[in-house]
Amino acid sequence: MADTVGKTITCKAAVAWEAGKPLSIEDIEVLPPRAHEVRIQIKYTGVCHTDAYTLSGKDPEGAFPVVLGHEGAGIVESIGEGVTSVKVGDHVVALYTPECKECKFCKSGKTNLCGKIRATQGKGVMPDGTSRFKCKGQDLLHFMGTSTFSQYTVVADISVVAVQPEAPMDRTCLLGCGITTGYGAARNTANVEKGSNVAIFGAGCVGLSVVQGAVEQGAAKIIVVDVNPTKEEWAFKFGATDFVNPTKLPEGQTIVDKLIEMTDGGCDYTFDCTGNVGVMRAALEACHKGWGQSIVIGVAAAGQEISTRPFQLVTGRVWKGCAFGGVKGRSQLPNLVGDYLAGKLKVDEFITHRKNLTEINEAFDIMKQGDCIRAVLDCSK
Amino acid sequence: MADTVGKTITCKAAVAWEAGKPLSIEDIEVLPPRAHEVRIQIKYTGVCHTDAYTLSGKDPEGAFPVVLGHEGAGIVESIGEGVTSVKVGDHVVALYTPECKECKFCKSGKTNLCGKIRATQGKGVMPDGTSRFKCKGQDLLHFMGTSTFSQYTVVADISVVAVQPEAPMDRTCLLGCGITTGYGAARNTANVEKGSNVAIFGAGCVGLSVVQGAVEQGAAKIIVVDVNPTKEEWAFKFGATDFVNPTKLPEGQTIVDKLIEMTDGGCDYTFDCTGNVGVMRAALEACHKGWGQSIVIGVAAAGQEISTRPFQLVTGRVWKGCAFGGVKGRSQLPNLVGDYLAGKLKVDEFITHRKNLTEINEAFDIMKQGDCIRAVLDCSK
Repeated sequence: MADTVGKTITCKAAVAWEAGKPLSIEDIEVLPPRAHEVRIQIKYTGVCHTDAYTLSGKDPEGAFPVVLGHEGAGIVESIGEGVTSVKVGDHVVALYTPECKECKFCKSGKTNLCGKIRATQGKGVMPDGTSRFKCKGQDLLHFMGTSTFSQYTVVADISVVAVQPEAPMDRTCLLGCGITTGYGAARNTANVEKGSNVAIFGAGCVGLSVVQGAVEQGAAKIIVVDVNPTKEEWAFKFGATDFVNPTKLPEGQTIVDKLIEMTDGGCDYTFDCTGNVGVMRAALEACHKGWGQSIVIGVAAAGQEISTRPFQLVTGRVWKGCAFGGVKGRSQLPNLVGDYLAGKLKVDEFITHRKNLTEINEAFDIMKQGDCIRAVLDCSK
Repeated sequence: MADTVGKTITCKAAVAWEAGKPLSIEDIEVLPPRAHEVRIQIKYTGVCHTDAYTLSGKDPEGAFPVVLGHEGAGIVESIGEGVTSVKVGDHVVALYTPECKECKFCKSGKTNLCGKIRATQGKGVMPDGTSRFKCKGQDLLHFMGTSTFSQYTVVADISVVAVQPEAPMDRTCLLGCGITTGYGAARNTANVEKGSNVAIFGAGCVGLSVVQGAVEQGAAKIIVVDVNPTKEEWAFKFGATDFVNPTKLPEGQTIVDKLIEMTDGGCDYTFDCTGNVGVMRAALEACHKGWGQSIVIGVAAAGQEISTRPFQLVTGRVWKGCAFGGVKGRSQLPNLVGDYLAGKLKVDEFITHRKNLTEINEAFDIMKQGDCIRAVLDCSK
């Protein structure tokens, strides 16, 4: 038992004091976990576009000051009263999509979305309405129920899952968002059929993970679409069979035309991993008449809308989407870690950059460059 | 064998000479069926909003002069070379959604759309590129592969199905479009789950048939939404449990709010049977987060688009659609006739008006009134 149990811990964290400004490395106070809460020593965290989006100020629900970060792995430092799902010392991954196993959503068997703490998570506070973070005498908000840009964080006990301790935490942190989101979208949400034709728009961490999921499901043709030519090599590395750069098509040919031509009528499944609503429309319209399904994964900017002619749906295309790949974190994440340990799920390959927590602003800059798939931060430094 | 076999038949038909004008009852010449074609003596035909839409000139693919009508039943008068699926004397229903059983679509097992004669059907001609109708020395176009506003018509052999002769043709004609579209959407496309909550927008022939399908599937709550208060009685007659008139809601409450309130979070299935793109959006957004499915059935006006925030899909709602209720006409329509004969599928109740073919313009006027569900025309007069 660590001698920090029951005490406030002072540690380093990257604080977002206001929108559009760089993060500040600060000494923050992390209060002990209350009932049904878990305090985690975060060892590694990924940096994701969603963090950058909220930091930019474009997220209408973004509130400050806040500790961002939602792709983290670490070790349970202490637990509050009534916590039974994890114990001190467990290797864990933080879950921005919690799983209470009790609410209407969790019991439905049809979705991984959990309703139990949605309202407070959205407001940036713990389920009892208060914060566990203080800095310079001020409360800091939580983010996505996880706040992993800190050496210690406190999460609800339904927002964390223990995973196999033999899996290195600088890898498992990435299962807290991007990889699971893409891999799960292909396997759970689309349940890609063997022998089918698949197109993936956007070859970042999520898109390349869709490629992995499509490979695992036995897809015949896996077409990656990206405007960045350096992504071609990445696409093939993860198992794509084709790469199309929509900016290099002949005059007058759209990406929809091209994909329909390549697949004799359209794709069986398409995935938007860009967040661009124009791309989402193209992804739907590149689906095969009669049965093609398009899955929206990317998060669009506030106020943006998707559109199409209803004829696209009346003639049998299906428009759907998912969050966190349809994966129930507490029930299913250990399976994904198992796939990783068994060599079936590539994770190491995504890590193009490594930085220390204190270098987080550099990691944000790197993410905006085309050659970064994932930057992982070592939170001990 | 009728003595008309192999000869041109002169008969009455309602000809649409140009957009936006009333139909003209004319004597037309109906040529004999060629190879893989069937000439049908149409006994009864329904009048549908799609006919009125094309006649209005708003359908950008509408071409004139044409013989409209797509909801017809009759008797096979003669068959062309190579026809094996029906024989002279069979009681048949014309199918605007053909079924060749050979194309990629038919073989997929995933859709009722058939690709075989789509191009020529869309152009208003038979599969060999020519017309079988003449009037005043001029060729008339075919419509939806059926052209039932005529005492005789010629269709492709994949565009017709023989049904039980004991079923009256003034009823079976309605299975050629509206009833099958709604009933099939609930049973095939949505496959409504027992105990679920369903909302249907628009209580015409299609919407009321969705109600019947939802009843048959065991839905718990079946909410009909219509701005016409006289539709309340109709909704309950077909098995609805609730009726909402969106124009009568309290100030500030939208139909989406109301449906979410009535169903503790949203509907499991919603159906648009209006063709109004604003209604299609409301139908999607009234779905339950995590799993609600919205099925677009109505045909929107040319150029109209549906829109929503992609967040609606990312949080688990599914947007889909269908044509002809996902029903494969040749394989499955006899089952629907069987349901009718067994008393499981209401058909008679839809017929609010009866007219002769020569009174077709009155039938079009009646259709635009709220108290008409279906007008059936007797083509012998």
